[in-house]
Amino acid sequence: MIIQLDQNITGAQLKKLKERLKELQYKTTQVSTQYADYVIGVGKKEIDIRSIGTLPGVRDIHRVSDDYKLVSKKWRVEDTIIKLEEDIEIGTGRFALMAGPCSIESEEQVEKTIAHLAANGVRIMRGGVYKPRSSPYSFRGLGIEGLKLWHEKARAAGIRIITEVMMVEQIEDMADYVDIFQVGARNSQNFNLLDALGEVDKPVLLKRGISGTIDELLQAAEYIFSNGNERIMLCERGIRTYETAYRNTMDINAIALLKEKTHLPVIADPSHGIGLRRYVSPVALAAVMAGADGVILEVHEQPEKAFSDGQQTLSFPEAEVLYKRLRQAFELREAF
Amino acid sequence: MIIQLDQNITGAQLKKLKERLKELQYKTTQVSTQYADYVIGVGKKEIDIRSIGTLPGVRDIHRVSDDYKLVSKKWRVEDTIIKLEEDIEIGTGRFALMAGPCSIESEEQVEKTIAHLAANGVRIMRGGVYKPRSSPYSFRGLGIEGLKLWHEKARAAGIRIITEVMMVEQIEDMADYVDIFQVGARNSQNFNLLDALGEVDKPVLLKRGISGTIDELLQAAEYIFSNGNERIMLCERGIRTYETAYRNTMDINAIALLKEKTHLPVIADPSHGIGLRRYVSPVALAAVMAGADGVILEVHEQPEKAFSDGQQTLSFPEAEVLYKRLRQAFELREAF
Amino acid sequence: MIIQLDQNITGAQLKKLKERLKELQYKTTQVSTQYADYVIGVGKKEIDIRSIGTLPGVRDIHRVSDDYKLVSKKWRVEDTIIKLEEDIEIGTGRFALMAGPCSIESEEQVEKTIAHLAANGVRIMRGGVYKPRSSPYSFRGLGIEGLKLWHEKARAAGIRIITEVMMVEQIEDMADYVDIFQVGARNSQNFNLLDALGEVDKPVLLKRGISGTIDELLQAAEYIFSNGNERIMLCERGIRTYETAYRNTMDINAIALLKEKTHLPVIADPSHGIGLRRYVSPVALAAVMAGADGVILEVHEQPEKAFSDGQQTLSFPEAEVLYKRLRQAFELREAF
Amino acid sequence: MIIQLDQNITGAQLKKLKERLKELQYKTTQVSTQYADYVIGVGKKEIDIRSIGTLPGVRDIHRVSDDYKLVSKKWRVEDTIIKLEEDIEIGTGRFALMAGPCSIESEEQVEKTIAHLAANGVRIMRGGVYKPRSSPYSFRGLGIEGLKLWHEKARAAGIRIITEVMMVEQIEDMADYVDIFQVGARNSQNFNLLDALGEVDKPVLLKRGISGTIDELLQAAEYIFSNGNERIMLCERGIRTYETAYRNTMDINAIALLKEKTHLPVIADPSHGIGLRRYVSPVALAAVMAGADGVILEVHEQPEKAFSDGQQTLSFPEAEVLYKRLRQAFELREAF
Repeated sequence: MIIQLDQNITGAQLKKLKERLKELQYKTTQVSTQYADYVIGVGKKEIDIRSIGTLPGVRDIHRVSDDYKLVSKKWRVEDTIIKLEEDIEIGTGRFALMAGPCSIESEEQVEKTIAHLAANGVRIMRGGVYKPRSSPYSFRGLGIEGLKLWHEKARAAGIRIITEVMMVEQIEDMADYVDIFQVGARNSQNFNLLDALGEVDKPVLLKRGISGTIDELLQAAEYIFSNGNERIMLCERGIRTYETAYRNTMDINAIALLKEKTHLPVIADPSHGIGLRRYVSPVALAAVMAGADGVILEVHEQPEKAFSDGQQTLSFPEAEVLYKRLRQAFELREAF
Repeated sequence: MIIQLDQNITGAQLKKLKERLKELQYKTTQVSTQYADYVIGVGKKEIDIRSIGTLPGVRDIHRVSDDYKLVSKKWRVEDTIIKLEEDIEIGTGRFALMAGPCSIESEEQVEKTIAHLAANGVRIMRGGVYKPRSSPYSFRGLGIEGLKLWHEKARAAGIRIITEVMMVEQIEDMADYVDIFQVGARNSQNFNLLDALGEVDKPVLLKRGISGTIDELLQAAEYIFSNGNERIMLCERGIRTYETAYRNTMDINAIALLKEKTHLPVIADPSHGIGLRRYVSPVALAAVMAGADGVILEVHEQPEKAFSDGQQTLSFPEAEVLYKRLRQAFELREAF
Repeated sequence: MIIQLDQNITGAQLKKLKERLKELQYKTTQVSTQYADYVIGVGKKEIDIRSIGTLPGVRDIHRVSDDYKLVSKKWRVEDTIIKLEEDIEIGTGRFALMAGPCSIESEEQVEKTIAHLAANGVRIMRGGVYKPRSSPYSFRGLGIEGLKLWHEKARAAGIRIITEVMMVEQIEDMADYVDIFQVGARNSQNFNLLDALGEVDKPVLLKRGISGTIDELLQAAEYIFSNGNERIMLCERGIRTYETAYRNTMDINAIALLKEKTHLPVIADPSHGIGLRRYVSPVALAAVMAGADGVILEVHEQPEKAFSDGQQTLSFPEAEVLYKRLRQAFELREAF
Repeated sequence: MIIQLDQNITGAQLKKLKERLKELQYKTTQVSTQYADYVIGVGKKEIDIRSIGTLPGVRDIHRVSDDYKLVSKKWRVEDTIIKLEEDIEIGTGRFALMAGPCSIESEEQVEKTIAHLAANGVRIMRGGVYKPRSSPYSFRGLGIEGLKLWHEKARAAGIRIITEVMMVEQIEDMADYVDIFQVGARNSQNFNLLDALGEVDKPVLLKRGISGTIDELLQAAEYIFSNGNERIMLCERGIRTYETAYRNTMDINAIALLKEKTHLPVIADPSHGIGLRRYVSPVALAAVMAGADGVILEVHEQPEKAFSDGQQTLSFPEAEVLYKRLRQAFELREAF
């Protein structure tokens, strides 16, 4: 169950509330986010929640039967809208476009990408400075210096930054230069990282694990929320199946399901989702039609020269066509 | 390689052609369809195909490196359009809607469904009279009598029939009452059935296996084509993955890929694709956006009372909304 | 529920029994096998089965909550032993070795294989005369003539034959020359074929589907049993997973589980199970340790020259070493 | 390529070696482990490695075509034996048994488990003090205090400790109390953690990811090795497949393959592998027969009362029977 506390609940009232729950054999976790304070109660006993709801200091109380609680739509029926510092919103009814290279490579690359995005009204730029690579001998990104350079150029152009964070120690250094922290598929159950991102007041985009279930994704989000950060978006990026005709199998079903199970925004990553450049566009369009609140795309001035994942990267002209179509698809869907 | 023969090739010319290929260590298969005659040559030797192409009796020749040949777009670049007897076409640039119950249950059910389809301009009705069922103790369908009844009603309303055939012996009896033979997922590698359907001049809708690869699906289609029937459409109906939040995982990626690999029409089956009624609509719309030439849907006047697969069946009102949206999505996609 | 009938139940008694079950809203299926007569009742109502068990003509009655009934160990606790015509038994406490080529190719090959098997005490020979092939342009086997030739040689050497049947029409022709009918993975849910094999008094080895569940395998066996044939063995032959380092993923877990869920013998097919010759031996040994009642192996005098699946085929010397080890592993396991 | 350096290579010689490799367009990584110094060269150019091998300061040089290098058997043909401080060895020809509870729960539990292990000659105890849990509201382990208590008891009984480390920050604190660091399935591509464990001179047991490939596992091990730690063992712990009859699908095939691809020891975890107590024993025995160098088991005095994963935990009496059988199976295999 989720108990939202009054802003001015007294220590004595809170103590009493927890004692009452303990009597009922409910384990409690107190959660304080940037927006509110909650007590999460987990137990098996059937109880009349009104007996808790009427205690002083309690604002409201909800029963949530899912294993995840705070991210469930059973509790919060109104969808979460994430407002980036100024005029960019992510969530139901908005359409978020994020695009950029796999890796930040050079000043020139950053400048060209920013110019491309600005020309197309794309306000959020993706790019990696810390890259999770299967082999230890591969390029692992430009690191914090790359991020600073990128940040300077992006700020000047009014472009926001989303980039992957791989370990707890990086968070503090990165925080000043990042607008959205991304948790990659390989870290989707790195619970210490999730805990730590719960303590930051920056939006987090959480990718589904390479073979993560919907339930695991939502519980991973619960880690972040229950550590204090309500500004989370989920990302479908393709799953691992038996099919080898594509690098991953974009799971459109997950998008439809997530939009019903959670109030958090859902973003589609068709570049990794199918992993083959020539099919990124139809898959991206499908994702929007399935309900995605946004799309994150790999684009590069010269895809064939891009670091690492060039085979799933669109060229600027390809991306331009796609941005327009995605917006049209979004508009049609919203008109339904 | 695929060699299309002149219509008036002589026996002597054909013999010479095959001898030449034998000399080159190419194994040959002669294929005669309702439309043309071909010789398929399979071998490893690098040869100059012009030396074959200029032989008398040869109309044209193409090299096809895929394991499948006649269904490949590398050979036939113009997409196949399947014309049902009158005014209904299936293939690129058209949008085919097929709907109906899981199983044909009763005269009343057939009548109500036909009325619903006619009112919504849906020209092809699906329904099972032979049902593949996991358990031998389950209802296996009304059989040929059910089909005859259905056929009579459908003909009167100008509605075409698509239904599953499960074994070679059923084909002959069913042929007079069926407009499109459907091969189910469990029979997608029932090669004898595929062979036999190659000898029928009726369109065949071939479903992907429950964990069938794209390549296996195309090779299964090759069985039908190489036995004489060019009128084939392919159907994505969800695959089996680790995810248990849905009954199957609709694989939108397959649709995008198939539209590029083959000239055959590609139909989406979102009802089985995700297997959960409340998500059929977004998944269907996504499939269209990914490139599907048509959608096949389970609909029933009272889904909760439908035989077997009620949990993935739309009600008539739900279906009506969806038909309209699908057509709008198709129009938007075509406008791209 | 499973009701075994007295051998001399009267028509009137049977009628009464069925009427009683109908009153209780149980759907009944009458099953007559080579050994006994049963009535299977499927319904949801909670009933006191003793009220049925005491009816005249009823020998015994069991409640079986699984979806499969007659193949469940909840009903028949004593494991099924399949006796081939003479001195070869398959089932718990015995160890069945079956070996031979993927395809029957020639008289010479058959003779050499038989000599190899006889010298090693292997009494059952595998080999395909009807081959399910992904591509229509591949060799599909020598057919019935190959089977007759093989049968003549094998009979003379006291060797039994297991071979795949692909369609209902083949059963009658093959029956005189086959000791065990094999149903391949692609036909594991070809329900018409299963029905027809239920009407034959020959043992059937039923392979798990390429991505078949344990439950589907047991229900497929139920098709055969409920159509009249109790002599069924199940075969684990590797499943399809995301891992591409092997051709299939031998699922040892299935063997352990099946030995507990069903009274039917369980055979392991490590050749297809992992699909790579160099790992067949450890996988085969593992399968025995997990509880397999037998192993079916691909062996060939010259694996590199074998039709189709040479890459998973053992040479005779490799096989000889493995037979001995398998028997030792079996003995150790039985001693536990 | 892997270049092992002479122990007394001079700075000038090393510089020259690297320059030479740079000229050849090979990217170099210098690796210094607790045992030796290496230079790893990654490049595409075909070169005569002898021209490098004869440079002063080079001990030997090997070409390794795999993506992983130092963990490949193509380079180091002699299998790695990991010697724990005293008399316990892990690797080919030895048989390592590790057992203990999912989580360290209490002093009493630790004592009882140690007594059980000591009585059965099991020298390595497993147990979690930091638990990766899907839900943030679940028990996450006793932490460092639990580890200290455990360590004290274990040391006194001559029992070694294997336990999971979840984040870089924990390593230093844990190092004094741990004999083998375990990396869990969810962290198998937590590259920063792998890097950090490369800098510790403690053996590491690295679990395969929940849907990790063989190749990814070996590359993860390469991270540890290339950061300086040669003492690595790999662990198969079941993969995620479509089958829901078990919690995971123990992949015996991986064991057979890994024993051929790498010189590192391979341990089987049948408790997580199948995840169901009643099948742990056959699966464990199968793993040994497939080639495992050891088995890690969950055991508990009262499995039904164990934290979290009780359903896969053996009781002490069950474990006692299994230890004996595993040793017998190992002896039989070694005798082959």
